[in-house]
Amino acid sequence: MTKGNAPKLRIIPLGGLGEIGKNMTVIEYGDDMIVIDCGLAFPDEEMLGIDMVIPDMSYLELNESKLRAFIITHGHEDHIGAMPFALDKFKVPVYGTKFTLALIDHKLHEHHIDNANLQCIAAGATVAINCFKIEFIKVSHSIAGAVALAITTPVGVIIHTGDFKVDYTPIDNEPIDINSFARYGSKGVLALLMDSTNAESSGVTPSEAELGKTFEKVFHEANGRIIVASFASNVYRIQQVVDIALAHGRIVCFQGRSMVMIAKIAQELGYLHIPDGSVVALEKLKNYENNKICVLTTGSQGESMSGLFRMANANHKLIIGKGDTVVISASAIPGNEKSVGRVINQLFQRGANVVYDRLADVHVSGHARREELKLMFRLLKPKYFIPVHGEARHLHHHAELAQQVGIPANNTFIMDNGNVLELTKRSAKLNGSVASGAILIDGLGVGDIGATVLRERRLLSQDGLVSIIIPVQRSTGELLGTPELITKGFIYIKDSDPLFTEAKQFAYDLAINLSKKNKNDWNNFKNGMKNGMKNFLLTKTRRTPIILPVIVEVDC
Amino acid sequence: MTKGNAPKLRIIPLGGLGEIGKNMTVIEYGDDMIVIDCGLAFPDEEMLGIDMVIPDMSYLELNESKLRAFIITHGHEDHIGAMPFALDKFKVPVYGTKFTLALIDHKLHEHHIDNANLQCIAAGATVAINCFKIEFIKVSHSIAGAVALAITTPVGVIIHTGDFKVDYTPIDNEPIDINSFARYGSKGVLALLMDSTNAESSGVTPSEAELGKTFEKVFHEANGRIIVASFASNVYRIQQVVDIALAHGRIVCFQGRSMVMIAKIAQELGYLHIPDGSVVALEKLKNYENNKICVLTTGSQGESMSGLFRMANANHKLIIGKGDTVVISASAIPGNEKSVGRVINQLFQRGANVVYDRLADVHVSGHARREELKLMFRLLKPKYFIPVHGEARHLHHHAELAQQVGIPANNTFIMDNGNVLELTKRSAKLNGSVASGAILIDGLGVGDIGATVLRERRLLSQDGLVSIIIPVQRSTGELLGTPELITKGFIYIKDSDPLFTEAKQFAYDLAINLSKKNKNDWNNFKNGMKNGMKNFLLTKTRRTPIILPVIVEVDC
Repeated sequence: MTKGNAPKLRIIPLGGLGEIGKNMTVIEYGDDMIVIDCGLAFPDEEMLGIDMVIPDMSYLELNESKLRAFIITHGHEDHIGAMPFALDKFKVPVYGTKFTLALIDHKLHEHHIDNANLQCIAAGATVAINCFKIEFIKVSHSIAGAVALAITTPVGVIIHTGDFKVDYTPIDNEPIDINSFARYGSKGVLALLMDSTNAESSGVTPSEAELGKTFEKVFHEANGRIIVASFASNVYRIQQVVDIALAHGRIVCFQGRSMVMIAKIAQELGYLHIPDGSVVALEKLKNYENNKICVLTTGSQGESMSGLFRMANANHKLIIGKGDTVVISASAIPGNEKSVGRVINQLFQRGANVVYDRLADVHVSGHARREELKLMFRLLKPKYFIPVHGEARHLHHHAELAQQVGIPANNTFIMDNGNVLELTKRSAKLNGSVASGAILIDGLGVGDIGATVLRERRLLSQDGLVSIIIPVQRSTGELLGTPELITKGFIYIKDSDPLFTEAKQFAYDLAINLSKKNKNDWNNFKNGMKNGMKNFLLTKTRRTPIILPVIVEVDC
Repeated sequence: MTKGNAPKLRIIPLGGLGEIGKNMTVIEYGDDMIVIDCGLAFPDEEMLGIDMVIPDMSYLELNESKLRAFIITHGHEDHIGAMPFALDKFKVPVYGTKFTLALIDHKLHEHHIDNANLQCIAAGATVAINCFKIEFIKVSHSIAGAVALAITTPVGVIIHTGDFKVDYTPIDNEPIDINSFARYGSKGVLALLMDSTNAESSGVTPSEAELGKTFEKVFHEANGRIIVASFASNVYRIQQVVDIALAHGRIVCFQGRSMVMIAKIAQELGYLHIPDGSVVALEKLKNYENNKICVLTTGSQGESMSGLFRMANANHKLIIGKGDTVVISASAIPGNEKSVGRVINQLFQRGANVVYDRLADVHVSGHARREELKLMFRLLKPKYFIPVHGEARHLHHHAELAQQVGIPANNTFIMDNGNVLELTKRSAKLNGSVASGAILIDGLGVGDIGATVLRERRLLSQDGLVSIIIPVQRSTGELLGTPELITKGFIYIKDSDPLFTEAKQFAYDLAINLSKKNKNDWNNFKNGMKNGMKNFLLTKTRRTPIILPVIVEVDC
C-alpha cells in the first residue's frame, strides 16, 4: 500500500452528540473497528409509551466483519444500556473495568444473555486490539470504575475522556490520573473527544468530599430516622453516607431494587466497605430506635415506582412521617423537576424535614466544569478537538472554550450523530455521514414504533377516540341498522347524554346519505364519515378526537 | 345580636394553596363575601389534552346571594384566567387597577362576555364594599398595576400581599409603597396572607434595573439583529429593552400574539412609552440594516406555537440564523425546562448567538425572597399569618420563616384549598372545609373530563388501542363471520403481518368459544374477549393496549 492511499482513521459518533444519552462512538481504521460505549437514552415526553431509546446500529451491522470489540468507559445507563441489544447481534468481546463489567453482566443476565465475552481491564492497563492499543486511564466520576481511553492508532493517539470530573480528594483516595494524561500530552495527541455536559458552567465542580459537611450537619441535628435518596450507582455517595451513619451510631438499611443490587455488587467487588452487622433488613428496623436508623433508597428523581416515592405516599412498609429527616442527595435531571418537586411536597405534607439542593449542598455533579476542561486541554494539547456528550448548547460552548486555550476554530469539529471525521497524521476532515438515529424500544418491540404510531398516541392522549361502527350487508352495501358510537378518552358521556343521542342520529343520517352517494366505495364512505363527524364534534365540543369509522360487512 | 354570636370573619382559599396557580381566596363576614383573584392553572403533564384548570367555584354558587365582588391583585393568568368562567355565572363587579382591568377586558371579549361591571381603582385608593373597606397598595411585581390589599373588616385588618417583590429602583420609578404597609402595621394587623413563591430563596430578589447592565453589554457587542424573548405581560422588561434598543439606534418590532396585544394596551394606557416611529411592522424590517433591528417576541418558555419557537424552526417570516443574537429574558417555569432547552439548542444549531440565564443575568424574579418577606413581617407585625401562593414546600418554609421574626407557630396556619379559617378580634381557628378542587377545561367543556377519561387518555398514550369488532345475529346470538381487528397507537402493523393474522385467528377462536359458553350474555362475552386478547398481546409484545371489543348486533 503506498502512502497516498493508506487508510484514514475514521471517528463516527452514533449517539451522544446533540443529546445527553445513548453514547456510542465508532473508531475505524482499515479492517478494524472498535466501538466506545453502548448506551441508552430515556424517552422524551413526546415519545409516548416508549420505554427507552438506543442508537441505530445499522452501520455496525453493515461492517460486522470489521467489528473487533466494545470498549466501555463506565457503567451508567447512557453508556451500557444498549449492551443487551448490541450483544444480541454482535458476538464480540466487551472490555471494561471490574465494576463496569459487573453492571453489564447483571443487565445481560436480566435479558437472558449468558454467553458474553467480558474482558476485565484495570485502570492503568493497556489492551491491544488489532491495530489499536488502548490504555484505560482512571478518571473521577459519579460512579466507581470510570476511565478515559487513550487509543494509540496508526495515525496517532486519540483520547476519549468518557464522562469525568477532576476530584483531588475522592472518597476512595484514588484521584484522577492526571499524570497519565500529561504523559500522552507530552508525546502528542492527535485528537481529543471530551465530555461537554458541564461546558456551560464556570469554575470547578466541587469534590465529592465537600458533601461530608452537609451530611455531618444533618446527622448531628436529626433526632429521628434519616432517609437518604441517591443514585444507586454512586458508590462514593453511598460509602460516604454509610461512614457518617455508622460514626453516628446508626445502622444502615438499603431500599429500592437497584440500590440493593448495586450495594451488593459493590461490596462483593470491594468498592463499598461496610463492617459486618452494620446493614439490616427492613423487617429488622423495628428493633432499633428511630435515631439509630439510616435508610439509603432509590427515588432521588421522584420516579413513581421508586423507594422514596412509595415511602412518601404510604405505599411502602416504611412510611415516612413526622420526625423523619429526608435528604434528597441529587439534582433533578432536566425533565424530572416536577416529579422531584412532587415528592418533596408530599414529604412536607407528611410532616418530614426535607433537605434538598435548593437549601443545602447535598449533591455535586460528576462532570467537569470549564476550569477542569481547560486543565485537560492544557495537559493534552490535542491537535484536533471534538466535543462529545452534550446537546448543541454544550457542544457550542465547549468548542468556544477550546479556542480560549489555543485550539484553532478550524481544528474543532462540532459533529452530529452519524457524521464521519477522517484523520491522517496531519489532517482531519469531515467526510459524509452514515446511518444513525434513535431506535425506540417498547416492550419486546425494537424499532416497531415509528412516527405514525407516536402521532396516533399523541392524538389519542389529547382528545381520545370516537369510533362509529356501521354494519352493512356485504352483497348489497345496504346499512343494517343504526351505527354504534364508542368513545375512549374523549369525554365523560352517558348513553342518555343529549350529545351522545344527537351524535348517533347525526352519524346515522350521514351514513345513509353517504352510502347512497358511494355505493360500495367504502374508502370514500369512510372519509365522508370521518370528516362529517369531525366537524360535528368540533362544533359541539371544540375538540378533535381521532374518528375511527368501522364498516362491518356481514353476509346474511 | 349579642357579642357571643357575632359573626366571625371567614378566610377560605379556593385555590393557590399547595400549588402555584389558580389563585382564589374568599373573605366572608355575615352576609357579605368578596373574592380575591380568580386565576387559572396550567395542566399537569398527567392532565392529557386539558387546556387549563380553574378552581371549583361551587362554594360561591351556594352563596351567590352574599357575593359582592371580585378584587383582582394583578393581571397574570393565575390571577385572572378564570374570570370568564366566573363572570359567566356571577353578575358582580370586578375591582382592579387600570392595567389589570384592561387585560381582563381583553380576555372577556375573547369569551364574548360584554356586560361585565369593571371598576377601576388606583393604587392608594380605597373602596368600600358593604362591611369591607379595601385599600389598594402599590407593590413591585413582574407586571404593571400590581397591588396588595389592605382589607378593613369588622374584626380587624387583613393584608393580602398578592404577588410581590420589593424593588426600590423600578423602571417606572414607582417603588413598592412600604410606607402604607408601615401605617397598617403601626395600627395593628389581624392577619397577613403573603406570597410564598420564593420562600425557599435566601437574600433579596434583584431589582428589575439590574438587568440593564446585561442588556447594555449584549446591545454593545451584537453586530446583527437582536431578538429578545420575554413574558409579554412584563411591561417593565419590555420598556427596558425598548429604551436600550432605541439608545443603540435600533428600531423595535413586536412579534407573537400576546406580545403585540399587551404592547398595544400598555401603550394606550401609558404604561409603556415608545416614541412615535420607533416601532415597525415585520414586513418593514427589510428596510433596515440588521444592526438597526431589535425584535421583541413571545416564546421565552419554548412554547411550540410561540414567536421564538417558530423563528428558531424556520416556520416564521423572520428566520433566525447566523449573526443574530437571541436573548431569552426569562427563567424556565418548572416543567418547561426541556422545551426551553430545545429552543436554545435549535438556535445554536442555526448558528445564532444565544444569551440565557445559565450564562448571564437576563432575568429577575417577580417574587420576594426571604429578606423581603422578613421586611414585610416586620412592617406589618401581624397577629396571625397564612402563607399563600405556593406548593407545600414553599408554605412550609414560609411558616418557618415567620417564626424567625417572632410569630408564634400557633398563630401560623398552613391551609389547604377549601379550609375555613375563622377569625374574631382575638382568635383564629380552623373550622372545617368547603368544596374545593380543580375543574378541568378541555375545549368548550368545563368539568366534563374526570378521572376516568384522563385514565383512558393515559392508557391510550402508552400503548394505544386494539379494537375487535364482532358481528352477531341479534336474534340468535350467532357469530356472523370473522372479527375485524383495528389498532391505533399500538404498533406499526400491516394486514399482512404475521402477528396481525395470528391475532385475528386467536380472536375468532376465542369468540366462538366464548359465544358457546355465554349465549347472549354479552357482558361476560366482552370480558372474556378483553382478557383473552390482553393476555395474548401481552405475551406476544409485552404491551398492554386498551382492548375494546365491540359486539355489533345485526338483524337479518
